[in-house]
Amino acid sequence: MRIAVDAMGGDYAPDEIVAGARLAADEVVAQIALCGQSDRLERLLGNPHGRPANIEIRHASDVIEMGESPGAALRGRDDTSMAVAVDLVASGEAKAVVSAGNSGAFMALCAMRMGRISGVKRPAIAVPLPTPDGPRVLLDAGANADCKPEHLRDFGLMGAMYAEYALGIDDPRVGVLSIGEEKSKGNELSKAAYELLAQTDLNFVGNVEGGDLYANGCDVIVCDGFVGNVVLKNSEGVAGVIMKQVKHAVTTNPLLRLVSPILRSALRGIVKQFDYAEYGGALLLGVNGVSIVGHGCSDAHAIRNAVRFAERAVAGELIEHISEVFAERAKALA
Amino acid sequence: MRIAVDAMGGDYAPDEIVAGARLAADEVVAQIALCGQSDRLERLLGNPHGRPANIEIRHASDVIEMGESPGAALRGRDDTSMAVAVDLVASGEAKAVVSAGNSGAFMALCAMRMGRISGVKRPAIAVPLPTPDGPRVLLDAGANADCKPEHLRDFGLMGAMYAEYALGIDDPRVGVLSIGEEKSKGNELSKAAYELLAQTDLNFVGNVEGGDLYANGCDVIVCDGFVGNVVLKNSEGVAGVIMKQVKHAVTTNPLLRLVSPILRSALRGIVKQFDYAEYGGALLLGVNGVSIVGHGCSDAHAIRNAVRFAERAVAGELIEHISEVFAERAKALA
Repeated sequence: MRIAVDAMGGDYAPDEIVAGARLAADEVVAQIALCGQSDRLERLLGNPHGRPANIEIRHASDVIEMGESPGAALRGRDDTSMAVAVDLVASGEAKAVVSAGNSGAFMALCAMRMGRISGVKRPAIAVPLPTPDGPRVLLDAGANADCKPEHLRDFGLMGAMYAEYALGIDDPRVGVLSIGEEKSKGNELSKAAYELLAQTDLNFVGNVEGGDLYANGCDVIVCDGFVGNVVLKNSEGVAGVIMKQVKHAVTTNPLLRLVSPILRSALRGIVKQFDYAEYGGALLLGVNGVSIVGHGCSDAHAIRNAVRFAERAVAGELIEHISEVFAERAKALA
Repeated sequence: MRIAVDAMGGDYAPDEIVAGARLAADEVVAQIALCGQSDRLERLLGNPHGRPANIEIRHASDVIEMGESPGAALRGRDDTSMAVAVDLVASGEAKAVVSAGNSGAFMALCAMRMGRISGVKRPAIAVPLPTPDGPRVLLDAGANADCKPEHLRDFGLMGAMYAEYALGIDDPRVGVLSIGEEKSKGNELSKAAYELLAQTDLNFVGNVEGGDLYANGCDVIVCDGFVGNVVLKNSEGVAGVIMKQVKHAVTTNPLLRLVSPILRSALRGIVKQFDYAEYGGALLLGVNGVSIVGHGCSDAHAIRNAVRFAERAVAGELIEHISEVFAERAKALA
């Protein structure tokens, strides 16, 4: 198994990407193909004899910058580190690709070059939400700002496969994000999606509210990419504000200041749960290959997590399972 | 000035509502009209000589239950505590109404009996978000699950008046909730609303992201009622989960356990900020009168806050200012 890594994508590329790949190399059996400017990557990897055997370099002269529009980033540019990495999956040489670079360009490249799984109209970003009771999945986290009900149904099907074969959740419960528990509550989109999801053979639990995202009632939460993005960023924002205020409370109270180091480390772990970049498992579901969308600010630790998660998703045959579900659907409808 | 209170509405009515009115009576100059079953209210208020002079009872024999559909709650039922309270504003006897009862029924009653402000197509729920840098306003928090761009523009106009005349924010900054800072980011609704808001003479700051709700860049955040409801409940949910985990961390660490009482009280205050029921200022904007939509689980403290906030909004002539803005708009467009 090979995992392609866009070594030039991300705010801290290539240094942190290379460092992350090195960390991952010790923990995965997969071959890691670092794609990017070979002279820089060679220098970062150092002495060839001291490198992990499962790291290789694939040269790419061009780099897509974070601020470029996806259009400009793709047109006639075959030799970007991102395109070379995606092409490794498209050609069958690799099973998974990881990029922390320009996410709009990355998603467009994956859809164009790897192609969509037959029957999937809209690929979606699935994000794992770690909670005290185990992980949840939310999708779409931002690939599709405007959705139709059938897109949300497809997200439910793909999300259930993700939960089962990448997170190991047995018979995952699927819910649709809405504004009340009753079937009659919601907007036009969520109510129509409810009807469609209820007709599938998913373990559909109905509506889930904004306050229940981190509660233990549902494993896969489906919504459009606008709501998904807003709610994920809001979770991070709220966690950050609380952290800031707790720090303030701790530094202004003499008694609390005594235990401040212990308190801080306890809180840091809690707040990290709401940083969806931490997990490394944001997947673009619906394309023909495991495609991990890293946060722009990914550090070595995040890249390591992403590579490990990619290996897990490949080993779980996630793409094959999604393809099968959509093929069965097509057969049933024919 | 008179403020009508639906004494029978809410999970803890009438006991907590009456207790809250008593608390408020000492702090407001307004006359408080408790609407509901007079025998029960008389009993709760106790000795007539020991009552605050600014509390009165308006008898209503019927009660709308929390679970009733708004349709069933309104049809041919003129003598519910909620209808009697709303009618006090409709008839001009009161300037504001507070209800913690069935919110669907309450919003429908306000729109039907008090009428909408001329030019307002969709009343919206505005919710104050207390932050360390002062309050923000978010609207719509759930009155309209599906919106058109012009509704969001109107929410911006009403929200700015709310910020200025009920919260005292000078020249409030208005933003539209979206999924990226750039004008080109968003869904069809948010992008069209952006264009319309930019054409007003509001202090429009453009897109605001989910992570910036509690940051200091914007005073009035506009969105549809679906997104608004999801994001508010998510904020409460995240704060609750963090609180629970901190409690766990505190009880399992012997050193932290020593300072547990101090820590808990510090945290309780922080988490309360994300409980939008705490503030008492969720207003149905766009109807002809100050209409405060209380949380179903309002206790005496929440009702006291709601009555105080109602007095503030009336004193600030919020409704008059909104009417003026929409009249000017109509004149400019004519």
